[in-house]
Amino acid sequence: MKSDLDRLMSERNFDALIVTGPSHANPTMYYLINGAHVGEVTTVIKKRGEAPIIFANSMERDEAAKSGLQVVDRSQFDPLKMLNEEKGNVLRARARLMGQMLDSLGMAKGRVAVYGKEEQGAAFALWNMLMSIHPNIQIVGEYNNTIFDRAWYTKDADEVARIRAVGEKTMTIVGKAWDYLASRRAKDGVLLKDDGSPLTVGDMKNQIRQWSVEQNIEHPEDFIFAVGRDAGVPHSRGTETDVIELGKTIVFDIFPCEAGGGYFFDFTRTWCVGFAPPEVEKVYNEVLEIFNISTDSMQAGAPCGQYQRLTNDYFEKRSHPTTRSHPKTTEGYVHSLGHGVGLQVHERPSLADYEGNTDALEPGVAITVEPGLYYPDKGFGVRIEDFVWLNPQTKTLETIGEFRKDLVIPLRG
Amino acid sequence: MKSDLDRLMSERNFDALIVTGPSHANPTMYYLINGAHVGEVTTVIKKRGEAPIIFANSMERDEAAKSGLQVVDRSQFDPLKMLNEEKGNVLRARARLMGQMLDSLGMAKGRVAVYGKEEQGAAFALWNMLMSIHPNIQIVGEYNNTIFDRAWYTKDADEVARIRAVGEKTMTIVGKAWDYLASRRAKDGVLLKDDGSPLTVGDMKNQIRQWSVEQNIEHPEDFIFAVGRDAGVPHSRGTETDVIELGKTIVFDIFPCEAGGGYFFDFTRTWCVGFAPPEVEKVYNEVLEIFNISTDSMQAGAPCGQYQRLTNDYFEKRSHPTTRSHPKTTEGYVHSLGHGVGLQVHERPSLADYEGNTDALEPGVAITVEPGLYYPDKGFGVRIEDFVWLNPQTKTLETIGEFRKDLVIPLRG
Repeated sequence: MKSDLDRLMSERNFDALIVTGPSHANPTMYYLINGAHVGEVTTVIKKRGEAPIIFANSMERDEAAKSGLQVVDRSQFDPLKMLNEEKGNVLRARARLMGQMLDSLGMAKGRVAVYGKEEQGAAFALWNMLMSIHPNIQIVGEYNNTIFDRAWYTKDADEVARIRAVGEKTMTIVGKAWDYLASRRAKDGVLLKDDGSPLTVGDMKNQIRQWSVEQNIEHPEDFIFAVGRDAGVPHSRGTETDVIELGKTIVFDIFPCEAGGGYFFDFTRTWCVGFAPPEVEKVYNEVLEIFNISTDSMQAGAPCGQYQRLTNDYFEKRSHPTTRSHPKTTEGYVHSLGHGVGLQVHERPSLADYEGNTDALEPGVAITVEPGLYYPDKGFGVRIEDFVWLNPQTKTLETIGEFRKDLVIPLRG
Repeated sequence: MKSDLDRLMSERNFDALIVTGPSHANPTMYYLINGAHVGEVTTVIKKRGEAPIIFANSMERDEAAKSGLQVVDRSQFDPLKMLNEEKGNVLRARARLMGQMLDSLGMAKGRVAVYGKEEQGAAFALWNMLMSIHPNIQIVGEYNNTIFDRAWYTKDADEVARIRAVGEKTMTIVGKAWDYLASRRAKDGVLLKDDGSPLTVGDMKNQIRQWSVEQNIEHPEDFIFAVGRDAGVPHSRGTETDVIELGKTIVFDIFPCEAGGGYFFDFTRTWCVGFAPPEVEKVYNEVLEIFNISTDSMQAGAPCGQYQRLTNDYFEKRSHPTTRSHPKTTEGYVHSLGHGVGLQVHERPSLADYEGNTDALEPGVAITVEPGLYYPDKGFGVRIEDFVWLNPQTKTLETIGEFRKDLVIPLRG
């Protein structure tokens, strides 16, 4: 929670933090300035124990003010004059500007941690230049388990309400996709559009994009609608020209966010239209069984890695390779059981199993549970993914976005 | 052009470059891997004189292959084993992995420039750790005028064809917006929807979003539809609840990109529905006149800053404040005349005027020309923006996306 930031800054001995970068696709910026749209050249500085302050281009002042935070006009530092004084050396001019912003907050020295999506080479140059101009300022970069990772580790009721709203819109879209597929006619084993031509993956993806606009949610990282062999490659987005054959697995993995950026949701179903081959049905039932076993066994406070071990045990016992038994396998179970979701599709905790993964199911985590089995050479893959929140009051898992887990979509025609 | 990269690397003494970060909202990644979607943990390494190589998670192999580049499965370095050996110290494990990737290309030493949108603190930590583990590797961060900035400075015919396609779709949307506004009825000076309720900025923005999906273009940084006072604040996105009054200026600034990321287009018109007050008309005509004067005077090879000076001269002579005459003004002419556009909305060249801006109108630049005048306290703002390409064959400016420059949209009713 945001209120954790000051405690975390204190524990890590950070006197201030700086966030820069765009206001879209930049979770730390979005978080600190409450989703305001402030353009590309904004700097946010938060001193420990104080509210963040936005240093914005005057052109962005209206959007910056929507954050509810104090906004300082960058032009008061006269950046153009600095550029002229530095004879067009933009790096030195920008490092001086950053130094002046810090100085204006009484931060001429101290430990300053930096965050935000930036061109990494430019950032590397800027922070090194800042330290060479201001030797009393120490710039710190956190690699993982950052103070934001920690603040985001658990979700409060307001955050979950926003995720739930995206989840409900997603359920509408998933329901429409099911209904659309169920209402198709088939010819020669291939689904048809209303006009009698074959329905393609591209057609379905366009439909889903239209429904998403109607629902006011976005897909900044696209989504997966992958058929047959592609369904056997976990992150294949699908091939637009593929037709949809009866009996082939469809992996539909959708991870939208609120319009304009914000909280994500993440959800997968695997479907076969018309019928499922026995081999697929067997694998599907195994994935569904370990899905149920793992979610039923999840307990507040337990180390996350144990559920990955449980899933590896289950699959290996049934002769499926896993990345534990066969580290380089591309068949069988090839990913981790799940991950936190929030302002990013992938965040803490990680339901992976490696030494040093100390992530635990703390009350308040909002995570995916998504076992899967993949056999691309056999032309199929299966993944079932639900989104769950560990309610900190009841200490029980709540599913966000309920949808039937049937493998087969029967044709109505 | 991409073929410039090797020459630029040679001039700057870079033995290799590394690009990391997501494959969306990450122009250098998009550029090197030809728009493939390869997820969040991909590393691309290009040695000087050689084609880029993608080091991808095995789950991403299909999408990575769509780049047409050589793809190396990261799992061959066994990152999980490294994590275990480093007892969960993710930073050390990742720095070792990066070092092994470089080593696998015979790059155990040398000067390596880094690019790509990343969490800047994490990147800062990673590159420092890599250098401490591999003292013979020197990481270089370029702040501005990077080799990509240079390679992108001019656009070739293929790039312009893609920008032109986005431009044509944008013209369809701008035309629909004009027609929709022209077809409204008004009551008490306010435009109405078909159902008789007032038309709001939010309604218009939703309409424009729907049309954008139909046209298969995206607005990763939103767009501007700002009325009255908001039109007087250059980057105000508009207030969703605002109604649209007859005679108020509407600044409609739209800067979409190809679906799934890619090339941008950028375009602005200012409209008054029904009629324009004389004061607005006068200012509009001034903006239009300097638009024509500046574009008519543009010549291949000329320094870009001179057109900003020309525009400042023009406006100051007519008693408008500028950021040259009044550095902190928020009235009058408050921004630069334009900028390059490509895989980013804002790139080189810059049509700004400061010492050290050596940008020139090289044949092949694709830029905006966008003079404007802003009077928020008087409740209006005006900007006219066209997108032009300096055709390297003919050395003349070609407008991409033609649309009438009328201020007033007459009501048809």
